[in-house]
Amino acid sequence: MLRLPPGHEILVTTDFSLEGLHFRRDWHRPESIGHRCLARGLSDIAAMGGQPFAVFLSLALPSRLAQAWVRRFTAGLLELAERYRVPLAGGDTAQSPSGILADIVVVGSVPKRRAVLRSGARPGDRIFVSGELGGSAAAILEMKKGSRLGVERSSYDRHFFPEPRVGLGQALRKRGLASAMIDTSDGLSTDLSHLCEESGVGAELFAHGIPRAHVGKGKLPVHLDLALHGGEDYELLFTVRPGRVVPKRIAGIPLTEIGRITRRQTMLLRSGDTTVQRLVPHGWQHFRR
Amino acid sequence: MLRLPPGHEILVTTDFSLEGLHFRRDWHRPESIGHRCLARGLSDIAAMGGQPFAVFLSLALPSRLAQAWVRRFTAGLLELAERYRVPLAGGDTAQSPSGILADIVVVGSVPKRRAVLRSGARPGDRIFVSGELGGSAAAILEMKKGSRLGVERSSYDRHFFPEPRVGLGQALRKRGLASAMIDTSDGLSTDLSHLCEESGVGAELFAHGIPRAHVGKGKLPVHLDLALHGGEDYELLFTVRPGRVVPKRIAGIPLTEIGRITRRQTMLLRSGDTTVQRLVPHGWQHFRR
Repeated sequence: MLRLPPGHEILVTTDFSLEGLHFRRDWHRPESIGHRCLARGLSDIAAMGGQPFAVFLSLALPSRLAQAWVRRFTAGLLELAERYRVPLAGGDTAQSPSGILADIVVVGSVPKRRAVLRSGARPGDRIFVSGELGGSAAAILEMKKGSRLGVERSSYDRHFFPEPRVGLGQALRKRGLASAMIDTSDGLSTDLSHLCEESGVGAELFAHGIPRAHVGKGKLPVHLDLALHGGEDYELLFTVRPGRVVPKRIAGIPLTEIGRITRRQTMLLRSGDTTVQRLVPHGWQHFRR
Repeated sequence: MLRLPPGHEILVTTDFSLEGLHFRRDWHRPESIGHRCLARGLSDIAAMGGQPFAVFLSLALPSRLAQAWVRRFTAGLLELAERYRVPLAGGDTAQSPSGILADIVVVGSVPKRRAVLRSGARPGDRIFVSGELGGSAAAILEMKKGSRLGVERSSYDRHFFPEPRVGLGQALRKRGLASAMIDTSDGLSTDLSHLCEESGVGAELFAHGIPRAHVGKGKLPVHLDLALHGGEDYELLFTVRPGRVVPKRIAGIPLTEIGRITRRQTMLLRSGDTTVQRLVPHGWQHFRR
């Protein structure tokens, strides 16, 4: 049983984490898989400006899985849950016919009629994104080439231990800054297309303005394609009415203006002053080979 | 966003329905799989005396699955959802690495501090069960022998289209009749052991009193073992303080007294006046071959 703060409504999010689709046991430590599983759900709540208050985990495991794997998976998940003071309140377990299957349910709350929706963007709004993009996809690219990245915390932490932007989402809601918001779980181009579709608008992005993640030993910026289409960065993508002042950072997280909302319902990518091309939503295919 | 009735608290249940574990495509029509998927969740809410008010479905599907299968699955699920006036409020979809995977989340409500728990049974309480037991397991047994039962609605409906006891659960809560309650999803012996464990008590069942399902053309009662251990009947198993009068039926559903709660923390099965044996929880292994 969960008590809701008075004057609040309930947010519920569900997210699968499936072996072979969202993670691989030879690429990800169990702690990272547990962390990422919960981060997906917390990030959904963050994108509505909500406060998470309980987690439910459904977990189906192959019969021959070592107990140590489950213990480490759970430790990774609980470490994140405790940091956000969200109790693991229940769930379901089953024997999996094949592979590890997790479904995470996060229940959150938000003051009534105050949740930030995907549908609030209007022509003329400016588009912002938190943090940097493409870092998670860059890690997958490296692992596809044969690198083993998951052994220790590294410059690829945005992939292995993404930090959901819960505090930032709430701050944007409380200050009334975000007119629409979504998290970048599927990749900027795809998530922006969802936001545009639900708002009945289009968008124009400035290629040079998109904050690219810096990865590897050389801390080099990722290719623009990874920043545009790579998923699982769990940053917040939001729109702001013209004239509103947006700080450079909130709670230490950089906020970057990357484009504007247009009346015409297409997505364009502007490079320099004269080059404009269609931006096609191009969902990151996770681990598909 | 969901609004909770004032003075209520939230109930959240999650239940997997996994191909090969909870259903088989060659045994179950898509409509039946969708119906059973939701019935599992509604039954959990029923067992707490709650009112379901929203459903979230996470569904992972193999890439080669026919669109018609999904349409029929959804139709089966929605038919049940509409009957209980529970909107499908969201969820997640993914491509499954293997087999159909569904996770159903049902959000319900109950007046504050009024949920019926598993932990409320006391020595001397009488044990009741709704409906009949073993019908679902009997259907699986027939299908294991090679019978095709799923083609039309039949005497095996308790397997293919189980009716969650939502109204009954609420009636038992409102009348203050049930001191503890659980649904028979894993089978009487297993679910009773959960109730006993959480209440810190034991139980004694009367073998002759257990209502056995009548199945097949001859409408013959199932074997006692199926009624004791067969799961997925989704009846309500509850305890009642001594001296309280329990009607023979509530909302048309028969209620049968099948035993009593004991102080000694073991489960016994009494047959006739003199024979007593240990009742070992013996979970139904669903479809394992």
